[in-house]
Amino acid sequence: MPSWNAVEGSLATPKGFRAAAIAAGIKKKPCALDLSLIVCDVPGASAAGVFTTNRAAAAPVLLCRQNLKKSRGRARAIIANSGNANACTGRAGVLVAEQAAKAVAQMLGVQPHEVFVSSTGVIGTPLNVDLILKQLPVLKEILSVEAAPEVPRAMMTTDSFPKSVVLQSKIAGKTVLLAGVAKGAGMIHPNMATMLSYITTDAAVAPATLQKMLREAVDASFNRITVDGDTSTNDSVIVLASGASGAAIRPGTPGAKKFQQGLTDVCQALAKMIVKDGEGATKIARLDVRGARNASDAERVARAVANSPLVKTALAGGDPNWGRIVCAAGYSGAPIDASKVDVRVNGLYLCRRGVHAGFDEEVAKKELDKNELVIRIDLHQGKSDAWIWTCDFTHDYIRINASRS
Amino acid sequence: MPSWNAVEGSLATPKGFRAAAIAAGIKKKPCALDLSLIVCDVPGASAAGVFTTNRAAAAPVLLCRQNLKKSRGRARAIIANSGNANACTGRAGVLVAEQAAKAVAQMLGVQPHEVFVSSTGVIGTPLNVDLILKQLPVLKEILSVEAAPEVPRAMMTTDSFPKSVVLQSKIAGKTVLLAGVAKGAGMIHPNMATMLSYITTDAAVAPATLQKMLREAVDASFNRITVDGDTSTNDSVIVLASGASGAAIRPGTPGAKKFQQGLTDVCQALAKMIVKDGEGATKIARLDVRGARNASDAERVARAVANSPLVKTALAGGDPNWGRIVCAAGYSGAPIDASKVDVRVNGLYLCRRGVHAGFDEEVAKKELDKNELVIRIDLHQGKSDAWIWTCDFTHDYIRINASRS
Repeated sequence: MPSWNAVEGSLATPKGFRAAAIAAGIKKKPCALDLSLIVCDVPGASAAGVFTTNRAAAAPVLLCRQNLKKSRGRARAIIANSGNANACTGRAGVLVAEQAAKAVAQMLGVQPHEVFVSSTGVIGTPLNVDLILKQLPVLKEILSVEAAPEVPRAMMTTDSFPKSVVLQSKIAGKTVLLAGVAKGAGMIHPNMATMLSYITTDAAVAPATLQKMLREAVDASFNRITVDGDTSTNDSVIVLASGASGAAIRPGTPGAKKFQQGLTDVCQALAKMIVKDGEGATKIARLDVRGARNASDAERVARAVANSPLVKTALAGGDPNWGRIVCAAGYSGAPIDASKVDVRVNGLYLCRRGVHAGFDEEVAKKELDKNELVIRIDLHQGKSDAWIWTCDFTHDYIRINASRS
Repeated sequence: MPSWNAVEGSLATPKGFRAAAIAAGIKKKPCALDLSLIVCDVPGASAAGVFTTNRAAAAPVLLCRQNLKKSRGRARAIIANSGNANACTGRAGVLVAEQAAKAVAQMLGVQPHEVFVSSTGVIGTPLNVDLILKQLPVLKEILSVEAAPEVPRAMMTTDSFPKSVVLQSKIAGKTVLLAGVAKGAGMIHPNMATMLSYITTDAAVAPATLQKMLREAVDASFNRITVDGDTSTNDSVIVLASGASGAAIRPGTPGAKKFQQGLTDVCQALAKMIVKDGEGATKIARLDVRGARNASDAERVARAVANSPLVKTALAGGDPNWGRIVCAAGYSGAPIDASKVDVRVNGLYLCRRGVHAGFDEEVAKKELDKNELVIRIDLHQGKSDAWIWTCDFTHDYIRINASRS
């Protein structure tokens, strides 16, 4: 079976979609793109969404959850803004999100609960809905396949580059396209800036199947760069499936397996871009934890190490300080036995059975100076594994986040 | 009843103690003080200790726990070094700690289990015990009341100033002295550098009482700047009571209450110095969480906010970004209702019932530019409170921890 190939394109490369972006004045910076509209022209298109678990979920997230329920997994559009998160804005914020959805629905001739609303930017400042409403006619005018590549740029906040990927393959003889865009930045983990991703596909997938597949893809991608429960107020991953390719995805078939792989690939590609764009980050490291007593222990160790500021600053400095890694594993909450732990960087043993592995300092520093690392931690206590991506922690992180904005 | 007064002095100001420090060559920097000996000249002196909960506890911590058990709370000396933590050093590290204790015991004519061993510095590098052993005769020679003020300086690693406090009061007509020293630095929370504190007193306190009182004092001080379970490999707080003042502390008496207050005051004064000296920190903030459903929720919210890099960088920048505070409370794991949350800085409302309180930006920035802040978070969900100290997160934190050492 042919695999998925990366191709040039945008959210509107899959059949049945158009999109556009515009500068609506929500961002303070003049003429900065900050409002996007993504539309599926196929009535009854399937939709699925995974949203933040933060108890202070923002108004647009509350509305998306409600709409997804009301429409039973059908949607036709996403209206997305950057510059203002519409979070911590109380009842007034919910009304703003509702107004935006309603106006888009009216304009497109669809139901209000078929419109997703998505926001990112400053928290706690009221979002002026008029800035959105007055741009809708213009957005409608420019909606097209050609304008779609602007969307990822309009989502950016502290991101340093737009994040986009398009994959193509064949399922049951039909060409299927999957496209995704994302914004991230922030320190990623644990207290990341908002992570947003919109995915389009022209496969035909029933809403329940799509929701299940999206959850699986997110668990193996975006959830590897952040923490379930430790999420921002606005995190959202939304997928729309037009069905226009004619390829039907039925659970349990090889086609479904193939589609799942493509969806996961899209999410992983975007997640990795987000880590690479971690505020001020210069390095990306995959942390592999092996040999834990159980899955929960493996996760705890992976997250404690990935999240340790001392480990992340050691990464930035190219310092083979494996002691900080063992220390973080030690306070992770998992009952590790420090005298059994091995730590390797790109295959080079730094620590074996809890003590210095006798490595050459210069050789180790050379490995740590690479831009992509694999740090493997063997606990030798059982058979459970976990992995997570992390980035280093540099001066620029402080510069970006300490500035008054 | 007279309260406790701060007085000039050192660990040897309480009667029955002598101490000294020396440059033993454990630190790389030549002539840097790195080895201390604290001795109680009263046979049968009481001892108590609270140690790290890290699963990768360092060799000296393992030995201290064992000695405290073996001696049933009696001790005569502490041998403490900086420059090497003797952590992640395996069985060889335990032998080193044992050798040091044994040599000190022999020299002083006490039992090996009456000697505490304490280390801080780099992790994962073998500690050369000869460097300690060969200095013991010199240390014995210079042991005195006069040499004791050098001890806190010999404990320093990335600390920018030595931390010491001496309190005096009267209990049952007798003058009682309490003295404490500490080292800290590190980002404090959550992944702090090693925190060590040694406390001496000339009160007469039975070991079991002393242990209980120390636990209470630590819970209201050092545990307010760090996390139970999220501790470094070496964290230790040790208290020795000579009884030489003649003031007997019996549980349930006003004298016991008084002594508990003094012990807590010593620990709080030292803990606050540690926060102030947080690597690169310029500000100290007391986070007061009120109105939680239960104590566990209150703790979770306090620690999530104190620990949020985005909150800490906002503090550094003097940015009244209350949204980051509500966001951190939202992912703390406590089921908060964001629409009920109030946030105040030094009494000024930033957020009321989850939305912008309409404060003047300039006035708020003025408050946030102060060196000492009180941030109060009212959840309005119940009657439980919690508090914690935190510091800001500046460029210097990265500079200190990213450097290869």
